Amino acid sequence: MTTYTANPELDLVLERTVDVAPELVWRAWTTPELIKQWFAPKPWSTTACEIDLQPGGRFDTTMRSPEGEEYPSSGCILVAEEGRTLVFTSALGAGFRPQVSEDGFPFTAVVRIEPDGDGTKYTAIAIHADASAKKSHQEMGFHEGWGAALDQLVEVMKAH
Amino acid sequence: MTTYTANPELDLVLERTVDVAPELVWRAWTTPELIKQWFAPKPWSTTACEIDLQPGGRFDTTMRSPEGEEYPSSGCILVAEEGRTLVFTSALGAGFRPQVSEDGFPFTAVVRIEPDGDGTKYTAIAIHADASAKKSHQEMGFHEGWGAALDQLVEVMKAH
Repeated sequence: MTTYTANPELDLVLERTVDVAPELVWRAWTTPELIKQWFAPKPWSTTACEIDLQPGGRFDTTMRSPEGEEYPSSGCILVAEEGRTLVFTSALGAGFRPQVSEDGFPFTAVVRIEPDGDGTKYTAIAIHADASAKKSHQEMGFHEGWGAALDQLVEVMKAH
Repeated sequence: MTTYTANPELDLVLERTVDVAPELVWRAWTTPELIKQWFAPKPWSTTACEIDLQPGGRFDTTMRSPEGEEYPSSGCILVAEEGRTLVFTSALGAGFRPQVSEDGFPFTAVVRIEPDGDGTKYTAIAIHADASAKKSHQEMGFHEGWGAALDQLVEVMKAH
């Protein structure tokens, strides 16, 4: 899985090098108290997060809109290779239970963390069932949203 | 995951002790040439099988009806603990890609293999998104089908 190659027809990819060490990026992605500080692009916020860091464990977050409405979403961790690769999916919930996606299409996220000098080569891949789900996710602002969240992650972990 | 406890409202369970050693049950479940000999209850047959035995690897089978019609289905391996636990789901395909279930509801299967004397305590759990999927699977003949397949597995592996 660490060698996963994105399929350009079906996947969306955000790849950037950031000047935060790989272990801090890993910690930011796997610690609920940290997730709450960076996961939702402002002015949205993340009001709750539960992570059970093992295959089959939950990856649940609740985002709050600027208007104060809350959007819980739940997912399931598939791969947790410490410091390197986190994979989770919204197609399953805790205990690998299938679940219907609230936002209309399920996706699997691969977060790959590689050392790059003192920083990290960061690759986030969103894997979809078909080209129409990819297109919907792209139009919802995948690159802008995940990019802004990564900026927040960097800011939080530098202050950490 | 090895400690997964079935939820009676959402899961279906087949539990039996068979007089085949655990390593043979594991081999029967993870070897395509063996799967083809037992996986589909007769008079159905299994005409193709591809397994990539690692998390994210494919678990694909094709069943043929007595009338000669073929029904391919694909799934994704989530857990492969040698000789003990195999977990796969139809909610995902190879590489953890979400997929729409052809038969209307996705499910995750847990196959647990435990030593019991010279034989095996065999537990198969089908995990569903909701009670209606469980009911559909039950009405499709989950217990009869998985039970008959297990009888075939035992027969094949005893002759092996």
